[in-house]
Formats: sequence, C-alpha cells, structure tokens
Amino acid sequence: MAMQRQPLLMSRLIERGAKVQPNAEIVTATARGTRRRNLAATRDRAHQLAHALAAAGVRPGDRVGTFLWNGSRHLEAYHACAGMGAVLHTLNLRLGPADLEYIIRHGETGIIIADADTLPLLAPLAGRVPSVRRIVVAAEAEGSGSPDTQVAPAVDYEEFIAGHETRFDWPELDENAPLGLCYTSGTTGRPKGVEYEHRSQYLHTMALSMTDALGLSGADAVLGIVPMFHVMGWGIPWAALMLGCKQVMPHRFMTPERLVELMAAEGVTLSAGVPTIWQGVKTVLEAEPDAYDLSALSRVTCGGSAAPPSLIRWYQDALGVEMIQGWGMTETSPLATLSRQRMKHEHRELPLAERLANVAKAGQLLPGLELDIFDEHFNRLPHDGESVGEILVRGPWICSDYYKDPQPARFHDDWLITGDMGSIDPGEYLVIADRSKDLVKSGGEWISSVDLENHIVAMDGVASACVVAQPHPKWDERPVALVVLAAGADVPPKEILDHCATRFAKWQLPDDILFVDSIPLTSTGKLDKKAARADLAAQHYRLPSLRDAEFGD
Amino acid sequence: MAMQRQPLLMSRLIERGAKVQPNAEIVTATARGTRRRNLAATRDRAHQLAHALAAAGVRPGDRVGTFLWNGSRHLEAYHACAGMGAVLHTLNLRLGPADLEYIIRHGETGIIIADADTLPLLAPLAGRVPSVRRIVVAAEAEGSGSPDTQVAPAVDYEEFIAGHETRFDWPELDENAPLGLCYTSGTTGRPKGVEYEHRSQYLHTMALSMTDALGLSGADAVLGIVPMFHVMGWGIPWAALMLGCKQVMPHRFMTPERLVELMAAEGVTLSAGVPTIWQGVKTVLEAEPDAYDLSALSRVTCGGSAAPPSLIRWYQDALGVEMIQGWGMTETSPLATLSRQRMKHEHRELPLAERLANVAKAGQLLPGLELDIFDEHFNRLPHDGESVGEILVRGPWICSDYYKDPQPARFHDDWLITGDMGSIDPGEYLVIADRSKDLVKSGGEWISSVDLENHIVAMDGVASACVVAQPHPKWDERPVALVVLAAGADVPPKEILDHCATRFAKWQLPDDILFVDSIPLTSTGKLDKKAARADLAAQHYRLPSLRDAEFGD
Repeated sequence: MAMQRQPLLMSRLIERGAKVQPNAEIVTATARGTRRRNLAATRDRAHQLAHALAAAGVRPGDRVGTFLWNGSRHLEAYHACAGMGAVLHTLNLRLGPADLEYIIRHGETGIIIADADTLPLLAPLAGRVPSVRRIVVAAEAEGSGSPDTQVAPAVDYEEFIAGHETRFDWPELDENAPLGLCYTSGTTGRPKGVEYEHRSQYLHTMALSMTDALGLSGADAVLGIVPMFHVMGWGIPWAALMLGCKQVMPHRFMTPERLVELMAAEGVTLSAGVPTIWQGVKTVLEAEPDAYDLSALSRVTCGGSAAPPSLIRWYQDALGVEMIQGWGMTETSPLATLSRQRMKHEHRELPLAERLANVAKAGQLLPGLELDIFDEHFNRLPHDGESVGEILVRGPWICSDYYKDPQPARFHDDWLITGDMGSIDPGEYLVIADRSKDLVKSGGEWISSVDLENHIVAMDGVASACVVAQPHPKWDERPVALVVLAAGADVPPKEILDHCATRFAKWQLPDDILFVDSIPLTSTGKLDKKAARADLAAQHYRLPSLRDAEFGD
Repeated sequence: MAMQRQPLLMSRLIERGAKVQPNAEIVTATARGTRRRNLAATRDRAHQLAHALAAAGVRPGDRVGTFLWNGSRHLEAYHACAGMGAVLHTLNLRLGPADLEYIIRHGETGIIIADADTLPLLAPLAGRVPSVRRIVVAAEAEGSGSPDTQVAPAVDYEEFIAGHETRFDWPELDENAPLGLCYTSGTTGRPKGVEYEHRSQYLHTMALSMTDALGLSGADAVLGIVPMFHVMGWGIPWAALMLGCKQVMPHRFMTPERLVELMAAEGVTLSAGVPTIWQGVKTVLEAEPDAYDLSALSRVTCGGSAAPPSLIRWYQDALGVEMIQGWGMTETSPLATLSRQRMKHEHRELPLAERLANVAKAGQLLPGLELDIFDEHFNRLPHDGESVGEILVRGPWICSDYYKDPQPARFHDDWLITGDMGSIDPGEYLVIADRSKDLVKSGGEWISSVDLENHIVAMDGVASACVVAQPHPKWDERPVALVVLAAGADVPPKEILDHCATRFAKWQLPDDILFVDSIPLTSTGKLDKKAARADLAAQHYRLPSLRDAEFGD
C-alpha cells in the first residue's frame, strides 16, 4: 500500500461546501417571494433529516422517495440520503399515475418526501403502493401543518426533523454502494431504473466541475432549472454542494417570467435547463429588453435535446451569455459530451461564428469516458463528420444494467448502446443526428428530424417545430413538420419549404407542413415525438400524394 | 451491479488529449531554438517507447528511471510508463551522487532514460548501481548518436524507439497498481520514496483541472517550469495530456530570460514554478518592461514555498496576471490546498487588496480531501486564524507509507502528519506558519520565519531573505536574518529592523541581520534552511549579546 485507500463516497464531497462557504445562500422561490437559508443551516437540517429517516427505520441501501420540486428541502434530501447511505429515489412529478405506481412498487420505496402541492398527484395511488409506510409532507409555508393523504400516514417535514441532532456520523460505505435511483421517462414500455453509485457520481461530480465542463466554481450562483427528479438535476446539486455555490431554486414557479426575475434578483451566474426553457426566457426578454438586469449571468447550460443554433446565437448576441451544450442520458449520469466556445488552444483565434457552430454540436467526450460511432455490425465509423452511426459509450459513470429489470441495457461488449445516432467530425465533436427511432428512413437514406427542426425554428415567426416520420408505401418513411407559429405571425407553408430547400436536398424536405397550436412535450420537456406520431395516426393523417409525383419513380 | 466497473487507470485519461487535439504542440527549448512536435506524434512515440521498454524486458510494476529535464521525451516517458504499467521513477537531477545512488539502488531501477548533458552527473555511479542494465540517452540533437557511459550499456533514445509499433494495447491493470515513484528531497536522513498509484493520480488529475484549482483547460498553453522529476511536475503533465493542452518545456534552459522569451514566443497562458523562479522573472521584466509581450499569460501557479505578498501584488499590477498559490508536498501528490482570487460568491465583490491577501494564504482544501490543525495531543484547534498547530491531512491522494522503508510516514490514526505548522482562518483558508522544524521557538513562543522573510523581502533593495533559528542559552532559540541585497542597493540593518518593527512585536524581531552574497537552495529551489543553519554553525556564528539586554531578564 502506498496511497490511502479511502472509498469515494459522496459524503466526502458534499460536506465541503458548507465548510468553506457556510454563508452561501440557498434560495427557494415561494408564491410570494423567496425562502432563504445559508448552506451551514441547510447542512445541519440535512443531518437532522438523516437522523429522522434513521429513526423511521431507513437503513443504508433503503430507497427514500422524493416527490419534490427543486427547493432547499430537496437539496436536504440529497445530502441526507447520500450521507447516511440511503438510496435517493427521485420520483418524476410529471409521470402519469400508472408509471408512478410502477416505479414506487418496483423501487420498493418506504418513505416518500413530497411537496404539499403535489399530493393530489399521489392521491390516485392510495391503496396501490403497499411499500410506502409514510409520507413526509413539505408544506410551502414551513410549519403550516400536514395535510392528510390516503396513500400512507403523513407527517409534516418540519415536525419530522425537529429536535434531531445536527450532526450525523456518516457511515463508511463501500464506494460502489447505491446512491440514487432514477427511472427513464421511457418513450416505450415500462420506465427502467438506473441506479447511481457513490463512486460513479463522485467521478461525475468532479468532471462536471472542470473548466472544460461547466466551469463550475464556488464563486457561482447557480439556478438549476432542470428538475432534481431528472437524472439528479444533471449532477449540478452535488457539484454545487461540494463547491459551496449559492443555489437558487425555482420550486414549482417555472414560468419564464419568474425564472428571469430570479436570475436578475439573485445575481445568477450559471443556469441549466432544456431548450424549451431557454426559448421561453428569450421570449420574455425580447418583449421587455430593459426590464431585467442579467449582467451577472455568464453561462446557460442546455441539455435534454439539442439547442437550435439560432437560440445559441441569440444568447450570445443579446446577453453576451455563453450557451454550453451537453449530451447524455439517464444511463450516463448524465454528462457524456460537452461543448463550449473555447476548449482548444486553436479556439482562441477562432471567429465567433465558428465557435458558436461548435457549441451547436453535442461536444467532446468528457475525460474518463470513451465514445464512438458504429455501423449496424459494430464496425467503428470514420470521424469525418459525414458517417452517421449508433453512438456507444463506456466509462465509470455509464450504467451497466437496469435496476432489477429482466430487460438488460443494450450493450455491445461492455459499451452501452445509447439509442442515439450521430457523427463525429474531424475536430472530435460529436454531432447528434437523432434518436435512432426518430430518424426518418426514406428510400434507404436517413433524414435527421433534428436538423430540419433547427432550420425551421430559426425562421422569423416560427415558435417551435417538430418533424416526425410518417409511413410511406414507397419510401418506407417520409418526414412531416408540425409547426407552431409565434402569436400573430403568418408564415405560408411554401415559405418554410423554400427556406428548408436552401440547405436540404429535395428528397430531404418535409412532405407536408402542418400548423398546430402546440407540440406535445415529454415529462422532461423534450418534444414528444411518440405522442406526435400517435396524434397524427389518430387523425388518420395521410401524406399528400402530390409529393410522390415529385420524387419520380 | 448498476454502473460500469472500469478501473481508474491513467491510460484512460492521457490518451484523450491526442485524440481531441492531435495538433496541439509540444515545444521543447533547445540551445538554439525549439524542437516542436504535435501531440498525436508525441503519443505515437510514447507508444513506441513502451514497445521498446517491453522489448528490453520492462514488465508492469518495474521501475523505469528518468534523469531528464522537462522536455517532450520526458513527457513520452510519462505516457509510456503509465500506459504499460511500468513505474516512472523520476530521478532528481539536483541530488548529490550519494543520494542518487541510494534512490536508484533502493528503487531497483533497471533502465534509466537520461538527457545526454546529464551523463556527467551519473558518472560517479559507475559500478555502484548494479540494478541498472541500460541507459537510454536522449541526445539534444535527435539522432546525434549516443555517448558512452560507464554506468551501463548506453543506447540512443531515437534508436531505442525506432521501428516499433505506434500502437501499444495498454493492459488492464488494477487501479491501485503503482504509477510513479518519487523520493522526497529529504532535509534530514535518507530520501524517502513515495509511490503514486493510478487511482490516486487519476483523482488528483481531475481535481487539478477544476475551475477552482488551476482552472486548466484544453485552450491553455502551459509552461511547466517545476521540474517533472519533482512530484510529477505537480501533476500538470498528466492534466495537460488529458486535456490536450499545448505544452512548452524549458529543458535545461532555466534562466529567467529564456523563460520569459518562451512565454512570449509561445503564447503561454499558464505557468507553474517556485517563488524564486517568479522573483527572477520579475527582475528580467522590470529591467526591460517593454521587451516582451506576455499578454496571453493569465495565471502563474506558485508552490514549493510561500510566495511573498509583494510578489503576488507585482504580478497582478504589472502584468494583470493572477498568481495561484498552492500547498502540498511529495506525500500529498502534491496538491492539497489552493488559493485563487475568486473561489467564493462573496469574492465577486471583494476589493483587490483583500483578494490578494487571500491568495497569499495556502488556500482551501481541494474537494475530496480532509485537512485540519492539531495541538501536540492531537486535539483539533479552532479555525480562528490565530491558533497554530500541526497540519494533518487525509484523502485518496495522500500517501499511507513510504516505499520499502522501515521508517513509516508519521500518522495519527489515518491522518498524515505533514510536518508543517499552520493556522486556519475563519474563511477556512489554511495559512502556513512554517515547517515545524523551521519555526523559531523563543521563550516558549513560536516565531514564523516565513512571515519575517516575506516582510523583509518586500523592502526596496532586498533581493531575498532567509530567517533561521540560532540556539540561545536563555530563550532556547532566536531568529537571525540572512539578507541578499539587490545589485547596487545599500540598506542598513537598522532600516530592516525598523521595517520589521512596523509589523512584529519586539521579541519577534531578528537578533541580527547578516548580509550574504547568496542563500543556499534545496534541489527543488526552496530556501535550504538546514544548509543555512549549518553555514552559520561552521562560521561559529554567535548571537550578538546586545539583544539579550534589550529583552530584560
């Protein structure tokens, strides 16, 4: 033995923030303002919560469910579970009752900590989740008492933790002990559980804090908009606890107006959310360009799905804010690749337009991971920016199988088959072509729905766009674009097609443009293409025969 | 199992740089200019070197010695040894023959890669290091043939690697397998070996690349002045290989003039060295303020010993360069604490003077480590900035014992007793008071030699200063200051004492000021207080009796 053999436990990382920055603020939005508490007090309450959970019978390895918005008590649950060795089972607030019931039963979750306003979503589960023996209710106004639920005996969060010691002597666990459980939002079949471990999340947290990742620093004030029930909030709460960042949490107040107010009032320097959030924030800021001071904001991190280049450009030009794009999934903890404006020495001289073009890509693989693209026979494809293949990834924060699931994760050797298709350019940037199931396969050639969407949404007057495949007797599949126009805008379909024709080949153009009022989103805010396809099917939508003729035969 | 169980091997990290930035340059200074090669070619040569070493009988776990300046071939040796699982035994070029012989024999090192100009330093070892079976000689002009040595059969580096495959299939090792061996320069007794492991250095490399550490990025051009034979060059070569940084290496051309020329010519953004280096660079720049364009330079990292606040201030004011201060030692891989101008949210509003005052401290502990100060009974001391105690540290990149040494590292429970004394202020910044053996104990009270030195060296006309304890019949020890004046300067001793009296109590002032031509330095560029004390003893120096009277009795 030459070096100390300490296990890589999250408890070793997350105690640091409160130690070096005890006065950093944890700010949670409330109906009428904010609730504020410093990091030292938040840490003390996390230790109290751990004692309360232990007193309620929670042992290392037991699942503790959270049915919570982003807020200080969700952070306390993160801290308490990681410290005591319980498994944080983050329940997605946007799941339907059937999936919710499934993941609680499947996770055998005993205690659920829930925000008071979410109780109606739990109500349909009464009598259906026998493992749940207690609901700890986080009332919006602290100490306002606990509403009753039919699901299990309820106790008010503040009563639950009151009187417990503010120091819990965290146990020495195996570094591969489970830390968290997160179910994929599953566009097909049952949700599948991914179990994070202390070691995997420890390494992910360190990677996230690198300069060439989010560049997260203890000097940052972070607004995590991505829900903490979604892939551990992309790992940001862990890194922020480690560094002692100020954290601002929107709770259920997720309107773009409120988010912008929070950013301005709290001097937020870094925020993280999906593209639809940043689209909404942009709309608010465009409407009132001088109403908010966002001068502290330097970076917004965009993940979940690809940000359109026009959106990246707008944040740079209008706000001087760097949009950081990342790619990953529940199975990858989630961060696998990341794109920033300056990651290479040669980027120092690169014109802005080219730097932004790089950011529109999914980015470079994080240190410690391996990633490549493969054809259907698992031959590696060239990194020429043209060849599109299935993306495979492996590394110490990539999952190896699903939690207690007979259906294994899809693997080739020990590489995870991600289900995303992409190319890698000569600069080693990954470019996501599409989810493999969202690619449109027309006449044996692939058409990227994402590329078409990004191009359409860059047009003035277009608010959002969703391109999906429709079955076609001759070409197998053909693309159709669903388009939401901005309020008051009038863009004829032909104009959209002409715009697409400036970049895409004729055979790649959508066969039809359908104007809709809204596009269905998944529980994590992505375009729900499965639902969009189902909507079209339910309307007995058929491709216009016109286009057939144009292709010739 | 839920997450992949890949071992944390350095081979997983260091291949990344050449992959994402194949064209990044590795620049090595030569007598007449520079030798340049890109990172992809350097990686290929490292793989060739590994094949050559394997062909010469090197197996995983075997020690490979390097007797090299900082240069591309030293980097190739780092890469090759880490990849193939050999143990990189960096031999300190500044050791005397007896210590050098000891560490080669003790390390049972079989092959030594040496720069041609260092062979005379090896010559006294002829016939005394039986384990050495081959010397691989890195000639300054590549392919200029190999000088003979009496130590062991010699082969030219280029001939040694020529013709070997440029891809070595790195083996799967245990993550706790040894990676490197570095002997402490040992101010007392025999050098002691610290063996780094793949896992420990992997974690250290990730920590080094965090924003709140060196903020190292793939966009940086790094000039590592700290020798690569000294605690693995503070880990910077590993991090730079991982990120794909441009690396500039000074080889033996370590004059301040040459270093400044390299920084200017190569657009260096980050450099790392000991305070004496930065003092020398400052002198060059002050002499010719407009001769060099250092506008790319943003950070210089200072370690090994504390940088005087006046020096930190000068770099900020004259160059707009942030000096980053760190603390650590061979036994801590080395980085344990680090200080930057902005590490906390509240630092954003902090006036420059206070930010610089923070940087003058040793800094905050890195994520993943624990550190505290203790009294002689191992009770923890308060973090009040006043209480001085022995610094203890533990964590996954802290050593647990010395390499094959009956003399164990000093431990309390599983904490390393560092031998340094310090305080921790209410902002959780570590402040080094002194090496425990360099503190002056006068009348039962401690006097910090470092504090006195920093204060004296801030005076105009003073080039450097070294304060050491001298035995005293009444007070046990009393401080004496050795002072080197700048060329042409004339500063009377009384002026120095008066200057010290503006900050220190009367009993803390040096009993004498001795002007000397130079102060002895250790092999790692620190003030050699052991040698300074020995010099004084050899001169039968006695404290002036005058001061006794002043203390009263």
